[in-house]
Amino acid sequence: MRENTIPERVGSFKNLRSYSYIKPERKSKIIGSLEEAVNKVNLRDGMTVSFHHHFRDGDLILNQVMDIIADKGVKNLTLAATSLRKNHDEIIKHIKSGVIKKIYTSGLRGKLGEEICRGLMDEPVVIYSHGGRAGAIESGNLKIDVAFIATPAADRWGNANGVEGTSNCGSLGYTMVDAKYAEKVVVITDNLIEFPPEHISISQENVDCVVEVDKVGNSDRIETGSLRKVSRPKDLYIAKNVARVISNIKYFQNGFSLQTGSGGISLAVTDFIQELMQERDIKGSFILGGITGAHTDLLKKGLFKKIFDTQTFDLQAVKSLRENRNHMEIDASLYASAFNKGSLVNNLDFVVLSALEVDTDFNVNVLTGSDGFFRGASGGHCDTAYGSKVTIVVAPSVRGRIPTIRDKVTNIVTPGKTVDVVVTERGICVNPEREDILKDLKNVKDIELIDIHELKDKVESLTGKPEPPLYDEKITGLIQYRDGTIIDVVRKISDRY
Amino acid sequence: MRENTIPERVGSFKNLRSYSYIKPERKSKIIGSLEEAVNKVNLRDGMTVSFHHHFRDGDLILNQVMDIIADKGVKNLTLAATSLRKNHDEIIKHIKSGVIKKIYTSGLRGKLGEEICRGLMDEPVVIYSHGGRAGAIESGNLKIDVAFIATPAADRWGNANGVEGTSNCGSLGYTMVDAKYAEKVVVITDNLIEFPPEHISISQENVDCVVEVDKVGNSDRIETGSLRKVSRPKDLYIAKNVARVISNIKYFQNGFSLQTGSGGISLAVTDFIQELMQERDIKGSFILGGITGAHTDLLKKGLFKKIFDTQTFDLQAVKSLRENRNHMEIDASLYASAFNKGSLVNNLDFVVLSALEVDTDFNVNVLTGSDGFFRGASGGHCDTAYGSKVTIVVAPSVRGRIPTIRDKVTNIVTPGKTVDVVVTERGICVNPEREDILKDLKNVKDIELIDIHELKDKVESLTGKPEPPLYDEKITGLIQYRDGTIIDVVRKISDRY
Repeated sequence: MRENTIPERVGSFKNLRSYSYIKPERKSKIIGSLEEAVNKVNLRDGMTVSFHHHFRDGDLILNQVMDIIADKGVKNLTLAATSLRKNHDEIIKHIKSGVIKKIYTSGLRGKLGEEICRGLMDEPVVIYSHGGRAGAIESGNLKIDVAFIATPAADRWGNANGVEGTSNCGSLGYTMVDAKYAEKVVVITDNLIEFPPEHISISQENVDCVVEVDKVGNSDRIETGSLRKVSRPKDLYIAKNVARVISNIKYFQNGFSLQTGSGGISLAVTDFIQELMQERDIKGSFILGGITGAHTDLLKKGLFKKIFDTQTFDLQAVKSLRENRNHMEIDASLYASAFNKGSLVNNLDFVVLSALEVDTDFNVNVLTGSDGFFRGASGGHCDTAYGSKVTIVVAPSVRGRIPTIRDKVTNIVTPGKTVDVVVTERGICVNPEREDILKDLKNVKDIELIDIHELKDKVESLTGKPEPPLYDEKITGLIQYRDGTIIDVVRKISDRY
Repeated sequence: MRENTIPERVGSFKNLRSYSYIKPERKSKIIGSLEEAVNKVNLRDGMTVSFHHHFRDGDLILNQVMDIIADKGVKNLTLAATSLRKNHDEIIKHIKSGVIKKIYTSGLRGKLGEEICRGLMDEPVVIYSHGGRAGAIESGNLKIDVAFIATPAADRWGNANGVEGTSNCGSLGYTMVDAKYAEKVVVITDNLIEFPPEHISISQENVDCVVEVDKVGNSDRIETGSLRKVSRPKDLYIAKNVARVISNIKYFQNGFSLQTGSGGISLAVTDFIQELMQERDIKGSFILGGITGAHTDLLKKGLFKKIFDTQTFDLQAVKSLRENRNHMEIDASLYASAFNKGSLVNNLDFVVLSALEVDTDFNVNVLTGSDGFFRGASGGHCDTAYGSKVTIVVAPSVRGRIPTIRDKVTNIVTPGKTVDVVVTERGICVNPEREDILKDLKNVKDIELIDIHELKDKVESLTGKPEPPLYDEKITGLIQYRDGTIIDVVRKISDRY
């Protein structure tokens, strides 16, 4: 409890005419350039800087800012990105020169991922889930000194959103957490709008300065990587099977909730679900997570009451977020944090997730390829798998000649305890601990159940048993589970591999 | 910077099948009664509990909960209410019995205010402004253990709003801060709605439990105390003068912003402003603070772009908040805190505020009567006066036979340095430090400027010089300025007075 000291009444009112009662100078927060912003926030050695990936491969800011920081001679930074993608290969040079010492991210890919697996960094990269990152920030485990937040629209006081302007990317859900907790917040925009804006995702109370640049991101690339048009019969067959599974589980009823993720197959599922809902006259409650036009169609048709959007995957969905009040932007904490009093993943009935590998304990890898290199992201995978009543993982049983179903996943991101059904084109595996689901799906026409060990054998009989990567002892990555514990480590790939 | 320990990879995946990976039990947060809630949050001696006053005199929860807490035998509580009103006289018994040891509030009135001035409490009441309270919570100076939040609508996970149901009170702006920062949050409602609700002001991520009761508040009383229909010619004349002042100051132009507070006169000003805007074809930017139907009219007619609402003063405004996307609910921090990076009061051009007393240094008292008793509330007075480019205080020069313009205010809430114009029915005083305003208003037809000392003399020649209250040494109240400093103290009224 706080104790107040009790001062005497300030002698005469004249004394009150002191400096602190002078009205504030009304100075716009706009400053001239990214260079000035880096100076203004007093960026120094050893600090933690953050960036977001709402533009996905279309991001134009992270590389630019890191170049400016490097030019300034700052060293030993921790880079806390919401995720890193192929277009961030350019930061390899900053790691080599000692500007970046440590990385926190949801994912790694491309040349950067490869080099880190080859031992580029002294300190291991920390991989966290979207919910895990929010939780780490909320709980004070990850302290961000400066958040650089690229936004498609911002006013001179720092109120910003992702739905206006030509670089519109939709939800700013992941970086909204940074805005609230970072010591300093730099909003970067290519679209200075009038105050007050119609939509406020980042609020002026959290913003130190605003920088106008030519272009923050390419919104036509917000689909890259996550969305692919599904046309292969195999993928469509898997998607169809997922819809069959969902529609035969008892939770598929009025008021059910859904997240279908962003993998190609997962997205095709959404369309099948729509058909089934219309057929059976079922109305859902909410759609969560990464949002596409397929989802906003469901909202528009009244099949769901609400969309909670942390990440927008196409321009149709951006339009919906801008116009439809029931399409609501949420931050990564409300989405998926384990450090609050109930995130929305805990209200989910069905989540459909993709996988790079699944093992016979239902553990899932969405981060590294079977060759041991970083090729993906943790994302909301383990968060939603944990929270959802039914977690369905979809994957082709073979990719190239590499089997997806394995004795052990190369790296674990999502523990099998939280994975309930695995759907492949060669059969559907139900986690034996989910007797309720087994009961619902047994003896259903067109649902071909198979024991996961049997499926593994079946696939291996075609591909042969895969050779594991050759590792050195050195650890290149720490995979954090959403509660902050280390669930796995990624080791350096041997030079002999 | 955080250092990570680097653990070995957890031996076999079997180990991962531990307790922490079991999916969460999906238990509704609804519990049976207020008694159970008090037990569930483990309410103990010495804790700080909070309540809000969005129902104003219609609040039915504070007294009820305090009775339950008292029955439980808990003692030495700090009561951190957003404000206390006449209907809270009932807590006098809990102060006497030692259940409540200390009070933080924006205002005090009625029997409770009187008894405290007579020396009821050992510890002085701490009075803060709405912005000051938000800042105290944000900065960790005021730690709330349990927030009891009455809401007109809530779902079983704790998502709540103030715009649905028969007890709708509009914005929950003040208590939104409590919800975010309190250790435990109990949402109380008389209207359990389906998840997910259309409007989410209090979010499930912050809520521990939900209690359904018969009635949380009378929404037909949200107008009490703050709103009065102005019909007296004197008041209308003052309001007209305020409109004249505003319309002759250079900031009255396209894009200007406005807060007109909740006093009777201030509200009449709003209608005059509307006429002036239409006459001169001026379009404003935003309206801030406490909102009435008069304000929502301005929004509807396109005269302003946006309303930022911390407190809703009538049912027409509640309807607007529910339906109009440009009528936006904001919390007390974004509204007025001095502890963030720019609250909206700092963007204000004009604020019109009422006063109980004004002195010749332009200091304002809105808290105590000239008899020294608590008769009002600090509210957003000093916050908006500080932030606004032009702060206009309105008051009749005499109330009953008591002069409003004085040598010294009985208690200071808002320092004169931040007050620019005082409008009475006997003339208009401009703070001599505001030469820009003096220049704008000088020689304007129908604007009768008068030096504030002269006005004081003029009033005193009618009323005589008022006798100050007779005080004892004991301090009964500490008045905090918005930055946390003590700007004045309230002393015990002598038994001989």
